[in-house]
Amino acid sequence: MTTETIGFVGLGAMGLPMALALRKAGFAVRGFDLNPAARAALAAAGGTIAASAAEAADGLGVLVLMVVNAAQVEAVLFEDGAAAALAEGGTVIVMATCPPRAVAAIAARIEAMGRRLVDAPVSGGVAGAIAAGLTIMAAAAAPVFAAIRPVLAAMGGKIVHVGPEPGQGAMVKTVNQLLCGVHLAAAAEALALASRVGVDAAVMLDIVGGSAASSWMLRDRGPRMLQADPEVTSAVDIFVKDLGIVMEAGRDTKAALPLAALAHQMFLAASAQGHGRADDSQVIRAYKGLSGA
Amino acid sequence: MTTETIGFVGLGAMGLPMALALRKAGFAVRGFDLNPAARAALAAAGGTIAASAAEAADGLGVLVLMVVNAAQVEAVLFEDGAAAALAEGGTVIVMATCPPRAVAAIAARIEAMGRRLVDAPVSGGVAGAIAAGLTIMAAAAAPVFAAIRPVLAAMGGKIVHVGPEPGQGAMVKTVNQLLCGVHLAAAAEALALASRVGVDAAVMLDIVGGSAASSWMLRDRGPRMLQADPEVTSAVDIFVKDLGIVMEAGRDTKAALPLAALAHQMFLAASAQGHGRADDSQVIRAYKGLSGA
Repeated sequence: MTTETIGFVGLGAMGLPMALALRKAGFAVRGFDLNPAARAALAAAGGTIAASAAEAADGLGVLVLMVVNAAQVEAVLFEDGAAAALAEGGTVIVMATCPPRAVAAIAARIEAMGRRLVDAPVSGGVAGAIAAGLTIMAAAAAPVFAAIRPVLAAMGGKIVHVGPEPGQGAMVKTVNQLLCGVHLAAAAEALALASRVGVDAAVMLDIVGGSAASSWMLRDRGPRMLQADPEVTSAVDIFVKDLGIVMEAGRDTKAALPLAALAHQMFLAASAQGHGRADDSQVIRAYKGLSGA
Repeated sequence: MTTETIGFVGLGAMGLPMALALRKAGFAVRGFDLNPAARAALAAAGGTIAASAAEAADGLGVLVLMVVNAAQVEAVLFEDGAAAALAEGGTVIVMATCPPRAVAAIAARIEAMGRRLVDAPVSGGVAGAIAAGLTIMAAAAAPVFAAIRPVLAAMGGKIVHVGPEPGQGAMVKTVNQLLCGVHLAAAAEALALASRVGVDAAVMLDIVGGSAASSWMLRDRGPRMLQADPEVTSAVDIFVKDLGIVMEAGRDTKAALPLAALAHQMFLAASAQGHGRADDSQVIRAYKGLSGA
């Protein structure tokens, strides 16, 4: 398996370190991205550069997609011809965050072409991608999952087979993002309240970060909420997109998601104020706006 | 200090183990509660039993209150006469969860009587009280705090001086409960969504409990959300009360708290369905009701 060539489309902040992790694990990688700097970085790590998405997939058994959204997945596979270029019986691994129903629909088209789709979104962010420590939530028929598990294991620290149906991986990721987004907005709401009453924010974070009130987001983003212009680890607009996917999944499954809907509005408000590209901790600016601060 | 007698009113699920912790640390304790079983338990641990709240406080330098709410604090101190019974210059330690403004108002009355008030709510629940491992968020002038710190240290594992003004401790606790309540409702919203799409709930909890989506509440209450009739560690109606205090604090400080307001409504809905005394994990029933399940 370790001399197999993997096609890889989407060499962005997440995709490039994931492709490099495949190289490090001994896979050959044939990659494509529109960004010349990303292509050069892959080439420097011993990867092959393709001239198009179809060429990246051409004749191979496995193609990984780490593009921005479901529309790009569809464009790469069907308009750019990557699905047809893949070897008969080959497997597409979709690792981008996409709406569950869209993934299921794409999988059906791929199956009809005699290929397979593994729905395998990730969590862990850029740091997890660089460390090859991503959590990967994979949905596919058991034999398909078993066959590509070594590919996933090269990029992730925790590989979970969440179900047999493409779309189930996307749903687990959707639920994950629902929690992340609501916890982020809740941390902002809590710290905005604390700031109105003269309690020292560092004392407050020390207490709530170590009690039953704690969340991963509170501990990670809370300190950056207290900074005026923090480093950007993930942008406000990522949650505008991801909570949009959460709401879409709720509509598709007829599930009312009031907290997620409200958190989505807070990220939208922060984006509307001009902070869409700021660190997602800056959702606290939406709360400051609400209270006229 | 260790032979000092501490007055203690409110020997409930939290108060009794706290009073026993004071005994264990070497303090004498003179306690009062309306419940005969609680009085007997304190007596068995070598405490003295008072016939009234005023008698519990009579002539002492420190009185601890662990009653249900601010109305009971006022009744004990002013109607039952415990404040007047306390030694001149004595200190009342209010450890119940109360609205910040109510605590500040009570403190002003106590000061006017020549006594002091330490605003010292706790987190850590019954388990923390039994282990003498509570987090205690104390607000009082520095010398007053320093004088009673050994009393707090007998009951808590983490004692934080959050500020000089009574009401600031209650505000830290309020912010803590805002986060706890929103995180509980968010966990319910997430697991209710997952259950609609056939993803195994245990697999889901394994992933989100170990990712950036995690919260203390998700990890602790999530498994009990999947049970039909779990053990009650803390009731739905406790969060109806505590999120009510959060909303009151928001009104008093003119802070809009949309997520907390919504979470409050979900706990109210679960209570309205007849689950007020059920484990607070059963806020998930409000979500099942929303989706007709």
